[in-house]
Amino acid sequence: MKVGGVPYRTIFLDEDGWGVRVIDQTVLPHRFQLLRLESVDDVVRAIRTMVVRGAPLIGAAAAYGVALALRADPCDASLKGAVERLAGARPTAVNLRWALNRMSEVVRELSPERRADAAYRAAAALCDEDAELNRAIGDHGLEVLRELRAGAAASPLNVLTHCNAGWLATVDWGTATAPMYRAHDEGLRVHVWVDETRPRLQGAALTAWELGQHGLPHTLIPDSAAAHLMSRGDVDVVIVGTDRTTASGDVTNKIGTYPLALAAADNAVPFYVAVPSPSIDWEIEDASLIPIEERDAAEVISVRGLGPDDTVGAVRIAPEQTRAANYGFDVTPRHLVTGLITERGVCDASAEGLRRLFPEGGS
Amino acid sequence: MKVGGVPYRTIFLDEDGWGVRVIDQTVLPHRFQLLRLESVDDVVRAIRTMVVRGAPLIGAAAAYGVALALRADPCDASLKGAVERLAGARPTAVNLRWALNRMSEVVRELSPERRADAAYRAAAALCDEDAELNRAIGDHGLEVLRELRAGAAASPLNVLTHCNAGWLATVDWGTATAPMYRAHDEGLRVHVWVDETRPRLQGAALTAWELGQHGLPHTLIPDSAAAHLMSRGDVDVVIVGTDRTTASGDVTNKIGTYPLALAAADNAVPFYVAVPSPSIDWEIEDASLIPIEERDAAEVISVRGLGPDDTVGAVRIAPEQTRAANYGFDVTPRHLVTGLITERGVCDASAEGLRRLFPEGGS
Repeated sequence: MKVGGVPYRTIFLDEDGWGVRVIDQTVLPHRFQLLRLESVDDVVRAIRTMVVRGAPLIGAAAAYGVALALRADPCDASLKGAVERLAGARPTAVNLRWALNRMSEVVRELSPERRADAAYRAAAALCDEDAELNRAIGDHGLEVLRELRAGAAASPLNVLTHCNAGWLATVDWGTATAPMYRAHDEGLRVHVWVDETRPRLQGAALTAWELGQHGLPHTLIPDSAAAHLMSRGDVDVVIVGTDRTTASGDVTNKIGTYPLALAAADNAVPFYVAVPSPSIDWEIEDASLIPIEERDAAEVISVRGLGPDDTVGAVRIAPEQTRAANYGFDVTPRHLVTGLITERGVCDASAEGLRRLFPEGGS
Repeated sequence: MKVGGVPYRTIFLDEDGWGVRVIDQTVLPHRFQLLRLESVDDVVRAIRTMVVRGAPLIGAAAAYGVALALRADPCDASLKGAVERLAGARPTAVNLRWALNRMSEVVRELSPERRADAAYRAAAALCDEDAELNRAIGDHGLEVLRELRAGAAASPLNVLTHCNAGWLATVDWGTATAPMYRAHDEGLRVHVWVDETRPRLQGAALTAWELGQHGLPHTLIPDSAAAHLMSRGDVDVVIVGTDRTTASGDVTNKIGTYPLALAAADNAVPFYVAVPSPSIDWEIEDASLIPIEERDAAEVISVRGLGPDDTVGAVRIAPEQTRAANYGFDVTPRHLVTGLITERGVCDASAEGLRRLFPEGGS
């Protein structure tokens, strides 16, 4: 999508053909800054510190991490080490494991001297596919929005989203945002309620920024205001992303998604999840088995933003020494989900719904 | 309650017997600072800027506002003007109107020269009553906690609360916190999950501070994490305050209370509201008639806290020019409320329940 009129992807090869450029998402929306990654260490650090974040983008970055590792040393031990370290960088996103499996399969049987080139090609293909998947999600989601629009008034369609499942979380288009961008581009008026998404404020910092760059009308809200807006009839539909959706249709996503789904159900607001198939974990039926990442309490106690002296810094919001809990994700049970918007169409959040669209499953 | 070992109330007369001292809650938890209010203007400003906040404390401050106005000029026009301006300072809290009605009744029939003294006495009595009410809520709430404890293990009882319905929101004890303080003092082990309460972060800044000063174990969480904790079985009971509860038992409270109640219901966690009777609006059955205050978008876009240079300031968390919505309160329908803890005991959240404890109603 565009930044200041210039089309960008979130990850791409540098001009020298081997270094990897990414947008530093830790300084958005205050600075637009590209970083260059040159080693698997760089990639692990970028994932861990959330320079790159969002399940699909984490997968794409990990793919390039394997390529960088094999460029440095194409032996089996190098491959194994890279895969292990990348897999441990963030525990919840299933795309990470999916991308690493795919990269391993591509290069494993090749002789060492052919591995790096093949890995770069596979990483590039994975990125292109991600953009295509998301565009397809946008097409199917656009139909959902069109149907909702058909029954409503001339005012804009109010879509609510949580966290950043935007193009910044993917290679391009985004997952939850793809239908919104498609609708906007097609002239279907949408207005987006953006949950700020504490503690890391990805909604305020990333979603509001990317929607603004693309010209989509939007309004930022505290996460806990979403239910009130729904009770007032000010939300027509909720669309969120997912870090991992089980084979039975339960949705793991950014902390705060589950209470949103409860509020949507209580107010008869349709609740959709944009699910590219790499985010489906075909091996898990029971969402309680998914590890929920616990992050540093400092992310809760301190809030990052732009200070009066125009530097990006943090302020402490609680007494010193306050203990805080910081769970990264929660699980939305499938019965609260109206539908899953995948690249192959919209289905029920159920094992049957998913198998109908993906009969091959995880194989 | 105690601050650094010294017992305080949130509002009290200065040594000269007429100036009013309050704790400046806009700089907590980073500074403990008392302000002196000398005029009705000072009080209106203190309420509007949330130097004093919390429905019961707003009522107490307004009472002293009337006294200060009558000390400056005891004529009818002065009384009328003071009441009107104080009533407009915050639209949602019913205690404000209740306190102003009561003050008006006390002084209206008196000759002007007797009004100021009577107003000071009435304001002091109102403060003492508030502390007593809250202590009584603490007694009844303690029984609720004891019953929950009876069926549970030896681990601490996990109580979750939202915003600050602590002693800082009242004259003393707090409403939602009174049962927790009583339980702690009685040796019943409690641990409090404190919702940070965006956008103004009263949980992080005020509740965490006052619980810490009193020695109550507590853990700060982002508001949207509460539902996840409940789904894990980590919350035994929710206790929140209220800015206005209707005669039918619907609860208006800080934005984010309604989704908490939804999460509690979905996880069979008891959800109690601490309701001192001055917070009951006997004239309203239908909560949708209660005006919901909309506050400045800047409270969402910017977050206040302590900067690295040890000054209290704000950082901007979203792109410049981002539009934000900032509703102060939401409504929790009575069917989601397990019980109302009042100064006369615990009742169902219903017209019948409230009338049983308060047969005189608003009369």
